[in-house]
Amino acid sequence: MHVLMDIQVSPGGVGTSVSPYIAECQRIFEAAGLTYQLHGYGTNVEGEWDDVLAAVKRCHERLHDMGAVRISSYLKLGTRVDREQSLQDKIDSVRDKI
Amino acid sequence: MHVLMDIQVSPGGVGTSVSPYIAECQRIFEAAGLTYQLHGYGTNVEGEWDDVLAAVKRCHERLHDMGAVRISSYLKLGTRVDREQSLQDKIDSVRDKI
Amino acid sequence: MHVLMDIQVSPGGVGTSVSPYIAECQRIFEAAGLTYQLHGYGTNVEGEWDDVLAAVKRCHERLHDMGAVRISSYLKLGTRVDREQSLQDKIDSVRDKI
Amino acid sequence: MHVLMDIQVSPGGVGTSVSPYIAECQRIFEAAGLTYQLHGYGTNVEGEWDDVLAAVKRCHERLHDMGAVRISSYLKLGTRVDREQSLQDKIDSVRDKI
Repeated sequence: MHVLMDIQVSPGGVGTSVSPYIAECQRIFEAAGLTYQLHGYGTNVEGEWDDVLAAVKRCHERLHDMGAVRISSYLKLGTRVDREQSLQDKIDSVRDKI
Repeated sequence: MHVLMDIQVSPGGVGTSVSPYIAECQRIFEAAGLTYQLHGYGTNVEGEWDDVLAAVKRCHERLHDMGAVRISSYLKLGTRVDREQSLQDKIDSVRDKI
Repeated sequence: MHVLMDIQVSPGGVGTSVSPYIAECQRIFEAAGLTYQLHGYGTNVEGEWDDVLAAVKRCHERLHDMGAVRISSYLKLGTRVDREQSLQDKIDSVRDKI
Repeated sequence: MHVLMDIQVSPGGVGTSVSPYIAECQRIFEAAGLTYQLHGYGTNVEGEWDDVLAAVKRCHERLHDMGAVRISSYLKLGTRVDREQSLQDKIDSVRDKI
């Protein structure tokens, strides 16, 4: 099952500079061989369900190791069975109509 | 790793009556032995990370089987390493201060 | 325009005890005369669009006054034109099918 | 009060092709003079709180006019009082650390 995900990871108890934690998650997506794209309020990720969700778990584990006392992640998970669609397809489909 | 989750499952291409799909996910959480509580805009679930996320996957698979062409799920995932806290603890902690 | 909202307010730069901030938002919803219900990962709120969104703004303003350096809020906003539906209706509709 | 927003608008009861609706919201952000950037699972928007939230309301109103029977929007709203930060600043801050 292919999944399109949007994820924002919010580490708590680490002060207001969270970018090193976000960067670490980008490295985890990269190491997992996933397609991903950082935006201003999260990261788009796509791949097989098990691979994508395993990366989310590694991200929580790794950020706790880095000192985050509490972590909240905000995920959108999109699956569909009618046809294949990438995150770029979704963007192109909207842009075609503007 | 213990996780507190909030999940809203939104099946698409099924008309505007989505409650049978939401009900099916409740049954999946029940069958998985998870602690869960339906509210007006989603469901709170708590348990071990792997059990909780496996239930989310089953929910997507099952709803596609029921005819949902596309599904979007909206998840909040909270983990912490400083102390144990249940969803009820969080509610009690706010209510004590009102 | 009537709206059903779910909101989770996450104040940053205030340590890990956020319940006094959440409690303050409950008071703001109460003072605004809105229907609201705290759950384990946010609060359901319903009312007229302008009243509900004005309360969200007051909540951000007030929490900054209380010392929150940064605030992220996570909102779901549901509107419909086919029929009236309360948050309790949504819960009942699912429970009827379990 | 300046706000960084992420918004995903999900119209219901319109079949599975939602891109014309998303495109209409882009036009509303453009007409409102807001800074915005479409991504694969939503749109980043920034501006003054009242301007940004007024655009969200117009988006719901307009999509109902276009035939969407029900609409759910998923918003993240970020405000901070310590310093100014744009959505691009957030992206740059993470990229510097990868």
